[in-house]
Amino acid sequence: MPKRTYGEILGFPQGSTFANRSELATSQVHRPNQGGICGGADGAESIVVSGGYVDDEDYGDEIVYTGQGGNDPSTKRQIADQKLILGNLGLARSQLDGNPVRVIRGAGGDPKYSPTTGLRYDGLFRVVDHWTATGIDGFKIRRYRLVALESADPPPDPPPTDTDTGAVRVEATIQRLVRSTAVALAVKRLHDYTCQVCGIQLSTPAGPYVEAAHIQPLGKPHNGPDIAGNILCLCPNHHVLFDAGAIYVAASGQVRDAANDAVMGDLRTANGHSLDWAYLEYHREHHISDEKTG
Amino acid sequence: MPKRTYGEILGFPQGSTFANRSELATSQVHRPNQGGICGGADGAESIVVSGGYVDDEDYGDEIVYTGQGGNDPSTKRQIADQKLILGNLGLARSQLDGNPVRVIRGAGGDPKYSPTTGLRYDGLFRVVDHWTATGIDGFKIRRYRLVALESADPPPDPPPTDTDTGAVRVEATIQRLVRSTAVALAVKRLHDYTCQVCGIQLSTPAGPYVEAAHIQPLGKPHNGPDIAGNILCLCPNHHVLFDAGAIYVAASGQVRDAANDAVMGDLRTANGHSLDWAYLEYHREHHISDEKTG
Repeated sequence: MPKRTYGEILGFPQGSTFANRSELATSQVHRPNQGGICGGADGAESIVVSGGYVDDEDYGDEIVYTGQGGNDPSTKRQIADQKLILGNLGLARSQLDGNPVRVIRGAGGDPKYSPTTGLRYDGLFRVVDHWTATGIDGFKIRRYRLVALESADPPPDPPPTDTDTGAVRVEATIQRLVRSTAVALAVKRLHDYTCQVCGIQLSTPAGPYVEAAHIQPLGKPHNGPDIAGNILCLCPNHHVLFDAGAIYVAASGQVRDAANDAVMGDLRTANGHSLDWAYLEYHREHHISDEKTG
Repeated sequence: MPKRTYGEILGFPQGSTFANRSELATSQVHRPNQGGICGGADGAESIVVSGGYVDDEDYGDEIVYTGQGGNDPSTKRQIADQKLILGNLGLARSQLDGNPVRVIRGAGGDPKYSPTTGLRYDGLFRVVDHWTATGIDGFKIRRYRLVALESADPPPDPPPTDTDTGAVRVEATIQRLVRSTAVALAVKRLHDYTCQVCGIQLSTPAGPYVEAAHIQPLGKPHNGPDIAGNILCLCPNHHVLFDAGAIYVAASGQVRDAANDAVMGDLRTANGHSLDWAYLEYHREHHISDEKTG
């Protein structure tokens, strides 16, 4: 397994430019000469966004990135399903570990944010979500939402210098997003701060704690609504598992383990909290697929 | 229980000024005529920072705020311990719920950030930590770290207008901080991504998930170090409980429930991960006190 360097590479600050992929690879900012993702089962350290996939969406500080594989390099069209392996698995792993990913944009990407020639290192992003979808060409694609690390979140300590590799690992502050809104608070109260999967209520000196999980996520590109019908009341453990697609709610109302479809029990309900099942179907479609063993 | 309005008050954007407390109270930006915290068991909606407590620390975008009670209004010195009740409980509750708190600065506060006369609404902050400490005057005080909500985190949808109260609830995106650093990753691997309290390993399609909990927190004012000896490997549920002071590690190595000191088991260990017990003592001193039933 290669030794990975997460964070910035010494001598190549944000904005550094490269004439071509070979120069980029030499810099270590993105090591592979061809692939768009530098990563594997242990994590992903960098990606190149250069218009190689028709489903990519670039919003500057936010990128909806398509995983690797299944496309024809000459036409750039998808010709097969993408699987959760290699770099695709690496980006998902980096989300779980909260590691930052270097983003390099190349000519060929969205002209609004990409260099006109060559490649440019555009800083550190974090992977905040990943899911599957059916791409423009009709095949399953892996999608990742990456958000630029705010410069307002400096590392807590001066970055350690690794003199062996000449790399500076900028240890960014990573945040697991837990949104709170008035409707989320109302749902929590209806469930008396208990988890709809396991029934646990975490008790603290300041009172009970539970999280509101939006089923169809808020924000691009899902744009789920912030309404009670789109919210589950979950303990942090089941929130993580639900967001990661490790568990899902079947049409029967049973909570199931995605690894083996084993039934974990019925989703718990509360008077006054009506779920809209279309959002649970959206969650299944974007996380539970035939390829889960891929 | 009063109807609380979390977020911005319609007509009073950040920077709004008020001649005195009575004018401020009329605006609803901070409703009490006297108290520094507008809140109770259900949450806190606003605080006034105006130099009333000797232990307050103001860093602009970050405030270490002292709870209410136990001080002599004329001398501003602490003369008794502060308890987790009323507004103090409200701020802790707002941390658990992730609700934003309006911050009003008054003349008398740190001159670097405070108005020279009257009061000024300085925007929405989130409570990211709370603990007990011994204040400058030798009594137990309740402390809260508040961080300004980034303008980079706009609400996901246009804020709903509540025409009954004339209030706009800006539903801020709240984030539970989960830091990730190279040393945190190393600790997770030593424990094979299992929780040191319950032994669970959360399994997801992209691999196992666990969190690194800094025992003495990073950042102001704790300034704990980012080293393996200051990190516990915890599932999200036990991370929440540990940070909230609901559980602690006794000097014996037993994990205990703070509510009744019941033993939950021995803290699990892993070869190669040595804890520094001074940090666990720091955690106990700042969370587990005689007043926990207060």
